[in-house]
Amino acid sequence: MSTGARDSIDLAVIGGDGIGPEVVAEGLKVLEAASDAKVNRTEYDLGARRWHETGETLPDSVLQELRGHDAILLGAIGDPSVPSGVLERELLLRIRFELDHYVNLRPARLHPGVITPLAVDRVAPDGVDLVVVREGTEGPYTGNGGALRVGTPAELATEVSVNTRFGAERVVRDAFARAQARPRKHLTLVHKHNVLRYAGHLWRRTVEEVGTEFPDVETAYAHVDAATMYLVQDPGRFDVIVTDNLFGDIITDLAAAVTGGIGLAASGNINPDRSAPSMFEPVHGSAPDIAGQGKADPTATILSVAMLLTHLGRTQEAARIERAVAGDLSDRRNAVRTTGEVGDAIASRLA
Amino acid sequence: MSTGARDSIDLAVIGGDGIGPEVVAEGLKVLEAASDAKVNRTEYDLGARRWHETGETLPDSVLQELRGHDAILLGAIGDPSVPSGVLERELLLRIRFELDHYVNLRPARLHPGVITPLAVDRVAPDGVDLVVVREGTEGPYTGNGGALRVGTPAELATEVSVNTRFGAERVVRDAFARAQARPRKHLTLVHKHNVLRYAGHLWRRTVEEVGTEFPDVETAYAHVDAATMYLVQDPGRFDVIVTDNLFGDIITDLAAAVTGGIGLAASGNINPDRSAPSMFEPVHGSAPDIAGQGKADPTATILSVAMLLTHLGRTQEAARIERAVAGDLSDRRNAVRTTGEVGDAIASRLA
Ligand SMILES: CC(C)[C@H](C(=O)O)[C@@H](O)C(=O)O
Ligand SMILES: CC(C)[C@H](C(=O)O)[C@@H](O)C(=O)O
Repeated sequence: MSTGARDSIDLAVIGGDGIGPEVVAEGLKVLEAASDAKVNRTEYDLGARRWHETGETLPDSVLQELRGHDAILLGAIGDPSVPSGVLERELLLRIRFELDHYVNLRPARLHPGVITPLAVDRVAPDGVDLVVVREGTEGPYTGNGGALRVGTPAELATEVSVNTRFGAERVVRDAFARAQARPRKHLTLVHKHNVLRYAGHLWRRTVEEVGTEFPDVETAYAHVDAATMYLVQDPGRFDVIVTDNLFGDIITDLAAAVTGGIGLAASGNINPDRSAPSMFEPVHGSAPDIAGQGKADPTATILSVAMLLTHLGRTQEAARIERAVAGDLSDRRNAVRTTGEVGDAIASRLA
Repeated sequence: MSTGARDSIDLAVIGGDGIGPEVVAEGLKVLEAASDAKVNRTEYDLGARRWHETGETLPDSVLQELRGHDAILLGAIGDPSVPSGVLERELLLRIRFELDHYVNLRPARLHPGVITPLAVDRVAPDGVDLVVVREGTEGPYTGNGGALRVGTPAELATEVSVNTRFGAERVVRDAFARAQARPRKHLTLVHKHNVLRYAGHLWRRTVEEVGTEFPDVETAYAHVDAATMYLVQDPGRFDVIVTDNLFGDIITDLAAAVTGGIGLAASGNINPDRSAPSMFEPVHGSAPDIAGQGKADPTATILSVAMLLTHLGRTQEAARIERAVAGDLSDRRNAVRTTGEVGDAIASRLA
């Protein structure tokens, strides 16, 4: 495991399904252009094709190998030919859980020049620059739940959201630290404690108590329903948001839409303790409808590569990529470019 | 119970907390102006004040009385002086559950003249006119869940989403019928079946199977995270949406924001079987920060009164209110008016 800048990066690459391999290729192109490190990549053939051919999603031996890398770059997982949830749960979520990616980090920034669905002049005159710290290993994502009398009129199905103090505390502390390192030093807890009383109580108390360690960070609270309104009416009010796995899933897609779409939204599945490699991936899915046509925007993957470099301590290289992307975005206008052309344009700004 | 237009309406009125009584007063003003029925109102003093004075939220005897009315008009519930969730769960949700309000109906229409956070010309050139049919009696709202070792580092808290075929089927059938009665005849299921497999499986199969009874209704599916994106990027794609209690809570606030804010968003907690009265309420909360200042927009309550009249079979009176509101909205511009002035303006259009 890397704990700082080294001369080489041992990178596990999972292109995955649909547009995954296309956007990952551009991410790697930009990584090579931006980093002085020698990048040793190992490609892992995981996803729909492997499942169809072998029935395997993530063999234990592959999981074990993944652990040996400095970081993982993932394209996208999922295909309509595979029953819903199989790849998502057995591959993507399994990696997040097994490698203890308890911080799912999702920044949403409105870059100059980017067109959004919002009337920005009116609702976000000072821009948007927020980070969602989504819990990644608990909540309704644990797979706890079950069904009874399936297929009968008496069918019952449950889903259990599992929340622990251990799990909430570590992600809340991480979120506070991130808030403290930012100019505004503001942290909003998003939950629904007026209805989900047990989990809500745990999250609220955890934020209150961990907050005493960060007296200079101001805290706020929003119910998840209200948070979706704020994200479109006044997204500039948010700095850092901390929330559970499901609410985080929902509001980060919305935050992405508000700041220009999932074509631009990067994410890191981070293990802050570095007991296993972290995984970086665009927020978007495999978009099978446009796969193989060079239509996918690789920007989200490229920004995920910048997050990867930051995580490995290569902050200057990360900053260079972010500047190159910002430059490209501000010049984009309505130009129609292929996936490869966008990657080339960003890479050439690094040359 | 009324099953059609009658000469009188026995109405239970719960003003509630904060701005609740103010907006309800305007709703009643418009009801009187719009309806030929004799409105017999009974006011129920429920909410924060009663809780502070007596410790009561909803005495069984009051619940029993509520059952005897044709319908219930509710303002808003909730006050920061009461521990979070007490009034919400013991009063609002208790009424929804006890009176079997399994259809929580939340239309979202973009009226001409209304300013929204969206760049409407770009993302909704053909307007927005959707209805969310939110399940009202199951999901994570059942209060199932618990906590262990509270206050210790080993604390555990769970929330259980309870879903039954019985509960899903009846609301899905209601949603199909509503879709069938609309010009587009389109129904979208919103869920998260790639992660919430047990509940997701139940909802999907239910939509597929009930759908065979409605062959002329086209169906679609969106994960809840994607649905929030669509609501800001292309809200016109939705006609009727059916979803569970929690996802419905979240996306209806967003749909309200997108169509002009919760000041305009009406809702009905409907018992389609008419085994108990239905309850109509604005989607917004009690907004204690602006209570008593005449600043609240009563439009959402007034539109909820129109839904109430529709439910009681008085569709022409409902349509008159809707036209009056549409007229008022198109003339509104940036005029600053008090709660009472808005109510007066809408009532005067009915004269
Ligand atoms: C594909 C799915 C399991 C995943 C999630 O729900 O976490 C995705 O929506 C995401 O946000 O990364
Ligand atoms: C107040 C709260 C319990 C309620 C809910 O979550 O249903 C509200 O948000 C709503 O949408 O009516």
